[in-house]
Amino acid sequence: MSPRHSLAEAARTRDRIVGYAVAEASRVGLEGLTIGTLADGLGMSKSGIVGPFGSREQLQIEALDRAGGIFRAAVIEPVAGLPAGPDRLARLIDAWIGYLADCPFPGGCFVTAASTEFDGRPGPLRDHLRTAVTTWRSRLSGEIAAARVESAHRSPDEAATVLIGISMAVNQEIQLLDEPDAAERGRAAMRAAVGLPQ
Amino acid sequence: MSPRHSLAEAARTRDRIVGYAVAEASRVGLEGLTIGTLADGLGMSKSGIVGPFGSREQLQIEALDRAGGIFRAAVIEPVAGLPAGPDRLARLIDAWIGYLADCPFPGGCFVTAASTEFDGRPGPLRDHLRTAVTTWRSRLSGEIAAARVESAHRSPDEAATVLIGISMAVNQEIQLLDEPDAAERGRAAMRAAVGLPQ
Repeated sequence: MSPRHSLAEAARTRDRIVGYAVAEASRVGLEGLTIGTLADGLGMSKSGIVGPFGSREQLQIEALDRAGGIFRAAVIEPVAGLPAGPDRLARLIDAWIGYLADCPFPGGCFVTAASTEFDGRPGPLRDHLRTAVTTWRSRLSGEIAAARVESAHRSPDEAATVLIGISMAVNQEIQLLDEPDAAERGRAAMRAAVGLPQ
Repeated sequence: MSPRHSLAEAARTRDRIVGYAVAEASRVGLEGLTIGTLADGLGMSKSGIVGPFGSREQLQIEALDRAGGIFRAAVIEPVAGLPAGPDRLARLIDAWIGYLADCPFPGGCFVTAASTEFDGRPGPLRDHLRTAVTTWRSRLSGEIAAARVESAHRSPDEAATVLIGISMAVNQEIQLLDEPDAAERGRAAMRAAVGLPQ
């Protein structure tokens, strides 16, 4: 095998491990990820799993980053080219509800689950998660401010809290309660919360 | 020791184990609860921990029930004697935000965390949780309907989704983001969502 070939091979292996870890962690939690389960699931040795990352924690961090990238690709990127305004906010809501209804993670919204899992566990993973959530909150507040629509909420920050909350409730209604009308109700609730017409 | 005395003693032991399990599970998750950690924390043997419950799962179910009782005592019971209407809904919101801000669980809202932890794990715990969440949703919808206030949301069910969502977002802002104004913003957001004056 040429060196270039083996580098590409190493990158593919790393990618495959992270992809599997994201799916697995969405069901059992990031803390529930065990090297043994990943090794079994991927037909690899335990040292083959940990090796590329150096530690289980680094693998968890990369799984979290990958999940963040999947969220951005599903919710933020599709509207990135549109001019800011109510139409872009409405499309962002549609993309967000679509992501929750047809979730790319088998166990439901990854970041919501990781948030309740790690909020009480100080360390690099919690710090990482906190940065990801804060960045998304600011972006969403900016999006709401730029749309300049009137609503019952007093500030874009307050409306951002409400939209993020609705996404969490919809995730629960879909994943735990199996409610068939959760997505439609969530979309209507989000539009009403930011003053968009139904 | 008389039989009555030993019965009382057994009840106290059971109570102490469940109380410790609730605190521990609010930090590490219900699945993260290990008999070994409980035994170490309580200075008991592992068989002394499992014995009263018969299984770890039964202990997890009792911890979930206990957490539900703590939530009801903090949020529902304080308003139970008031006549239904906007004032009772406003007080329920105050009690709910108070519960989130001064959380009786060290790791934040227990049921929210358990929900994302168990939504992808079929079994008695998920069923139990689902019943608890469904019961609370119905009660909250009834409370909103009885208050007869006008809001941007089209139905009491939609408004219940929004309030439950805001409680989850506030829990994240307090537990993960350490935001000092999370409780006040959450209270304002909840009042606005159901059409109560600020």
